[in-house]
Amino acid sequence: MANGGVGEEVRNKQVLFRDYVTGFPKESDMYVTTGTINLRVPEGSNSVLVKNLYLSCDPVMRVRMARVTFSGFSSYTPGSPLTGLGVAKVLDSGHPDFKAGDLVWGVTGWEEYSLLSGIESLRKIQHTDAPLSYYTGLLGMPGMTAYAGFYEVCTPKSGEYVFISAASGAVGQLVGQFAKLLGCYVVGSAGSKEKVDLLKSKLGFDDAFNYKEEHDLDAALKRYFPEGIDIYFENVGGKTLDVVLLNMRVHGRIAVCGMISQYNLDETEGVKNLTCLIYKRIHMRGFTVRDYYHLYPKFLETVMPYIREGKVVYVEDRAEGLESAPAALVGLFSGRNVGKQVVVVARE
Amino acid sequence: MANGGVGEEVRNKQVLFRDYVTGFPKESDMYVTTGTINLRVPEGSNSVLVKNLYLSCDPVMRVRMARVTFSGFSSYTPGSPLTGLGVAKVLDSGHPDFKAGDLVWGVTGWEEYSLLSGIESLRKIQHTDAPLSYYTGLLGMPGMTAYAGFYEVCTPKSGEYVFISAASGAVGQLVGQFAKLLGCYVVGSAGSKEKVDLLKSKLGFDDAFNYKEEHDLDAALKRYFPEGIDIYFENVGGKTLDVVLLNMRVHGRIAVCGMISQYNLDETEGVKNLTCLIYKRIHMRGFTVRDYYHLYPKFLETVMPYIREGKVVYVEDRAEGLESAPAALVGLFSGRNVGKQVVVVARE
Repeated sequence: MANGGVGEEVRNKQVLFRDYVTGFPKESDMYVTTGTINLRVPEGSNSVLVKNLYLSCDPVMRVRMARVTFSGFSSYTPGSPLTGLGVAKVLDSGHPDFKAGDLVWGVTGWEEYSLLSGIESLRKIQHTDAPLSYYTGLLGMPGMTAYAGFYEVCTPKSGEYVFISAASGAVGQLVGQFAKLLGCYVVGSAGSKEKVDLLKSKLGFDDAFNYKEEHDLDAALKRYFPEGIDIYFENVGGKTLDVVLLNMRVHGRIAVCGMISQYNLDETEGVKNLTCLIYKRIHMRGFTVRDYYHLYPKFLETVMPYIREGKVVYVEDRAEGLESAPAALVGLFSGRNVGKQVVVVARE
Repeated sequence: MANGGVGEEVRNKQVLFRDYVTGFPKESDMYVTTGTINLRVPEGSNSVLVKNLYLSCDPVMRVRMARVTFSGFSSYTPGSPLTGLGVAKVLDSGHPDFKAGDLVWGVTGWEEYSLLSGIESLRKIQHTDAPLSYYTGLLGMPGMTAYAGFYEVCTPKSGEYVFISAASGAVGQLVGQFAKLLGCYVVGSAGSKEKVDLLKSKLGFDDAFNYKEEHDLDAALKRYFPEGIDIYFENVGGKTLDVVLLNMRVHGRIAVCGMISQYNLDETEGVKNLTCLIYKRIHMRGFTVRDYYHLYPKFLETVMPYIREGKVVYVEDRAEGLESAPAALVGLFSGRNVGKQVVVVARE
């Protein structure tokens, strides 16, 4: 506990944000440095001192790299460590809800050790019979996003036709598995042969295609969905959305989870086929996971048995060490990662 | 009743469709001619023979003028009369649900007399203490559209900020009045000073503006909605939608009723600000009235007292005679009409 006294001063490797970004982020928009940190929480503070184990690379971090975000997310501060979701171990705590030794997940810094003062997002990890890194993915924000987005936003029914873009990503791979478990027909798009193979073999999608090899996306969608699409789980935006609109069925639903193709553009692409919303009476609904965290206990109740029974699997792309973090984050936007991109800072 | 025998053969003035339209429709895309019609229903037929009284000019008719519609609506047939919604009086009937003398509204021909074989859309008019022409507007499809669109699609709450485009039109003027009755703050946009005055005086909107005089629509919306927009009732699409997206509040709702600005374009305008759907968790929902006609009795129960008590008023723009019908229809797309555009074919 944080009962005063001077704690051990240790070296603390950090990934700092260099300056505001326009266009695609580059590794050089961040830099790795080493500072020091005291491993005790200051006396009288209700902060928590953690050792970071796994850091999550999420598309929304690009949004926070812009000078102005419009998004409700704050911009990063040049010269300060990036922050994001991660898994950590509590070393010292001034807060009654946490004690040394607790494993937690939530917002932390891109560094070896973090003194966390804003701990609203921190959750204690109860189930340790799954890999701890899953709390950056399957059991964390992306998992909860997939769960809420599919079951709450898409209002799915067995037998419906489901299309998922960025389907092998942190969220997409789970939406597809949830949809299959419900009895839907599921097709995903991804950006490489390796990802497409993964979707069809390991992740159990009915079909999948490499969008980079489909010069006529409309024709591709008509081939995979001759009856049209009931549910589109939107992760990419732009041209893909435009063509999907033409292929939606009457009373279709579009859950707008992300638009990763648009985050790096100075001027976003125009979507032209919105009149389809009327003729086809389409429900298009943007959502963010923060409106659904009250469902987290129910989510764990649903998904932990699936994991134990092997009914849901999860593909991670692990980058080893903080030095590899900038490249891992940047790689999200070129689709370099295969599965959920995690940075391994330390193993417990 | 249709018990054989040769009925009276009369002259029948008609508005025929000339040929498929691209771009803005012109009066010359239609022509007026005179044929003949027998005022008896053929023996053994279950058709209904009507005298048309009022014809409705609706934006969706432009969609039907295209060779290919994508919309679920069939194209008009060159050389045949246009069809659309109207109010008519039954002169002869082979159908047990209708008898001579009944007043009806539903799909009919753009002509003086119509022999209607497809009568699924015909409804008997029960309440005649409102102007009969209202069954092309307030008490017909546009009224039902406003009712379903506002109460069912927008899920409105008292005190919310409501923006309506094409606000003096057949649907918009009612949405605004419904929203005021619920206790919302309501601003409408329209395309002339006359319409803006109408919105503010006769129709009881809190405020209104002429979009043609606002060179910076974003600034205008920020002026009228400093707190942002909870509900946008979309009638126009394109650039307006794009700017509205920037001004929506978190958990806002967009009911997509129409996109009249887009129907005459060879290539529709791209909407660029759709990422707002995510950050602001916006519900955007296309709808058409056909999914809601089961609510028509409830709608009449709600709206007839409002009419009788003067709580809901309705502005019509009446064109006299079938000869004026092509100009009236074309005028919809330049915003020439002030209020619901009706063509008076005959008074009972």
